[in-house]
Amino acid sequence: MKSATIDNLIECLKKLPAVGQKTAERYVYHWLKSGKKEVNDLREALDSLLSTTKSCERCWDFSDQSPCKICQNEKRDKAKLCIVSEPQDMEAVEKIGEYDGVYFILRGLVDPIDMENQNTLKIQELWQRIKTDKDIKEIILAFNPDMAGETTMLFLKKELTAIDPQIKITRLARGLPLGSDIQYADDITLSNALQNRKNF
Amino acid sequence: MKSATIDNLIECLKKLPAVGQKTAERYVYHWLKSGKKEVNDLREALDSLLSTTKSCERCWDFSDQSPCKICQNEKRDKAKLCIVSEPQDMEAVEKIGEYDGVYFILRGLVDPIDMENQNTLKIQELWQRIKTDKDIKEIILAFNPDMAGETTMLFLKKELTAIDPQIKITRLARGLPLGSDIQYADDITLSNALQNRKNF
Repeated sequence: MKSATIDNLIECLKKLPAVGQKTAERYVYHWLKSGKKEVNDLREALDSLLSTTKSCERCWDFSDQSPCKICQNEKRDKAKLCIVSEPQDMEAVEKIGEYDGVYFILRGLVDPIDMENQNTLKIQELWQRIKTDKDIKEIILAFNPDMAGETTMLFLKKELTAIDPQIKITRLARGLPLGSDIQYADDITLSNALQNRKNF
Repeated sequence: MKSATIDNLIECLKKLPAVGQKTAERYVYHWLKSGKKEVNDLREALDSLLSTTKSCERCWDFSDQSPCKICQNEKRDKAKLCIVSEPQDMEAVEKIGEYDGVYFILRGLVDPIDMENQNTLKIQELWQRIKTDKDIKEIILAFNPDMAGETTMLFLKKELTAIDPQIKITRLARGLPLGSDIQYADDITLSNALQNRKNF
């Protein structure tokens, strides 16, 4: 409308998650005001993102090397495999600094209505990994405890048990989060917290 | 932390308004998953942003030509000059399709505490425009009715009157916005709405 260049850049930015017309405009005007250096830095960073970032062929995390640092790390316990949906979930687990096993990033969630979408996930790669990697003794399913996450965990549990009936499959505990209020906890959470109560 | 390339791109994105670590990460992982085409499109759009976008030397809007389309338009009433803070404000006024005058974009707000910041605004260019452009009969100050906007309007009014004591200076009306609730309107807004009541 205003200038083809600006409109074109706005359209590109609107493909980002949670970015609409207004946010995209705000970014464009920010760059127009910030000047050439910032825009050039961004262009170069995008450039090297494409040229240097690979997928780790063991865990499917994004990394500058394959296998990635965690998969290469000799000190990691290869008997534990933590399956997550997105690389950010893996980073959240890494941040607590307590987990010493390895990971597998599914790159999304299983959608029971749209089975086509499974092709974009690393599901076949996961079956392959479970079949060939004889070190794995325990699989930890670390998905969000919401509808999509639960569905994915049920699906994975069924399929993984079919591949290897002996394998131990665990999931993250549900319960009251730190700082929460029993009065406002939902029924399922409170019921889980009660069932899984611990000696004190 | 994870890969120098990803961290570098995250740092570039964190310079955008209202973008923190989490949002920047989300954008980067979106691009890593979306693949080369989307990232290349964005890189090219950034490229042409730098090479084709100029500042209009009359109104200081961003455009692919100088003077811009509005400044070149013969049908526009050159007697009315609407001063706004940002190009987005100008677009909001243009969208209602009722204003037929021309614009001047100040590129920010006057900060009485930090007078240094005036150098980044187009204040000198505004004085120059008022002094040389003899067509202007009315100046409309279209700034947000908040602390920073009011300060800027007071400052501009004082200086503009000093340059040309005959010039007519107006501001956007204050009052109840459409769909608002008198019960929840603040005192100043309601007082303005009452003082400026109109025949019905």
